[in-house]
Amino acid sequence: MPRTAFFVSDRTGITSEMLGHTLLTQFEDVKFHRVTLPFVDTPEKAQEAVQKIREQARLDQCRPLVFCTMVDEALRTAFQIDEAFTLNFFEAFIGPLEQELSRKSSHTVGKSHGITNFEEYKTRIDAVNYAMIHDDGVMPRDLNEADIILIGVSRAAKTPTCLYLALQYGIKAANYPLTPEDFGQHTLPRLLLPYRNKLFGLTIDPVRLAQIREERKPGSKYAALDNCQFEVNEAEALMRHVGVPYLASTTRSIEELATTIMHQAGLTRRNY
Amino acid sequence: MPRTAFFVSDRTGITSEMLGHTLLTQFEDVKFHRVTLPFVDTPEKAQEAVQKIREQARLDQCRPLVFCTMVDEALRTAFQIDEAFTLNFFEAFIGPLEQELSRKSSHTVGKSHGITNFEEYKTRIDAVNYAMIHDDGVMPRDLNEADIILIGVSRAAKTPTCLYLALQYGIKAANYPLTPEDFGQHTLPRLLLPYRNKLFGLTIDPVRLAQIREERKPGSKYAALDNCQFEVNEAEALMRHVGVPYLASTTRSIEELATTIMHQAGLTRRNY
Repeated sequence: MPRTAFFVSDRTGITSEMLGHTLLTQFEDVKFHRVTLPFVDTPEKAQEAVQKIREQARLDQCRPLVFCTMVDEALRTAFQIDEAFTLNFFEAFIGPLEQELSRKSSHTVGKSHGITNFEEYKTRIDAVNYAMIHDDGVMPRDLNEADIILIGVSRAAKTPTCLYLALQYGIKAANYPLTPEDFGQHTLPRLLLPYRNKLFGLTIDPVRLAQIREERKPGSKYAALDNCQFEVNEAEALMRHVGVPYLASTTRSIEELATTIMHQAGLTRRNY
Repeated sequence: MPRTAFFVSDRTGITSEMLGHTLLTQFEDVKFHRVTLPFVDTPEKAQEAVQKIREQARLDQCRPLVFCTMVDEALRTAFQIDEAFTLNFFEAFIGPLEQELSRKSSHTVGKSHGITNFEEYKTRIDAVNYAMIHDDGVMPRDLNEADIILIGVSRAAKTPTCLYLALQYGIKAANYPLTPEDFGQHTLPRLLLPYRNKLFGLTIDPVRLAQIREERKPGSKYAALDNCQFEVNEAEALMRHVGVPYLASTTRSIEELATTIMHQAGLTRRNY
């Protein structure tokens, strides 16, 4: 029977889920049933949530884990019940931090994922628009605005990585697919030559690539393993030849790809 | 002088940044200078990072805050130095959790943002593709696959919200812009009628909308305040009339919009 884990928050639940998830992945042999309870911002909603936790404890005959990121002390103490094992994020850290900074925290709900200012918001939205417009080799005039241009064979995870860079970091990321027409001449597609220093490659294991492409175009040459092997070999050879750094997306999540690229390309986030 | 905050991680730094950010936003009157040090996964890299922190302490003449999410105990103890104020997330919670679960944690690096399994990965990538293909009223045949369809006037934040839903939660989100042609008849655009129960609206303060549109098409009728007021009024009237729930994006971040929609529409995430 899986152990139930609740992520309780006075706002979106994003921080609570991430904190809990980070800890739970350290216990690989336990199966967890995860429930997020967001927007618990009144004593009434706290009581409702506590009720759910109690019911689950009865059902499971085992006390649920509760990861709390409530700012309000009164709300979070409601979750200190015998029927649950509760970890309080703010309780653990805000006290020592208040002492170090010699001031009281503001105890304001919903700060961490709220809109901080319009400029930051605009940066991010602009970056998302940029990624949408400059996807898959569509290159209108303002390619020199790009912070980074991802290249690689079709289905190497360029698009989601660009979108993640835009949404999370406000980075303007374009992407350009390397296709069989680009191979053989051992030089970059002409369109990319002026932006050599902005290029970053994504590659992928050909077997995985064939599997991904097969789902999209079953039985096609595009998806055939030997074609995938050819394309990946040529793309990697080209990137090595012209000195474009590259990463394999095979065993990396979108988050890892994005942060590794930021790190290796020396980019700094545009928003917090 | 801003206080420096380091986010140190053995992997992407995403968890460390988020947890640190959540705490720091509770101190509104302190200015922070934020530095992320990701991929600190060897004793040598830990020493390098500690060196950077020491230098910053000298520069600032004030000890930096250090938010650590290192799984490895030896690596994280390297950051327990007098010149810094260090908060260790794993240290605080993993012990109590090990006790509650009656087992040792695996101490494996890079679990929380690594690829967990191919199915989950596919769900997410498929959702991103879906959002890309079904953006801005482009509606090929498989609209009944959508988990949710966002409607609203142009520039109400539909696209980034759809992308966030896809990337973070694996939710298939389409979006459809309400334009002046859709107003006046007090009924939904014909294309949307079969999917009434999947609709969710986004609206926005007309003044903010005019500001956003003005940046894109300066001096246009599209951006004029009276036109924005007209469109927003009509769109809201339509959504109320046909009973589509809606949210204002004016003071909400993309994260808040996405999680609020998930919550109100009763959607569950497809991936962790």
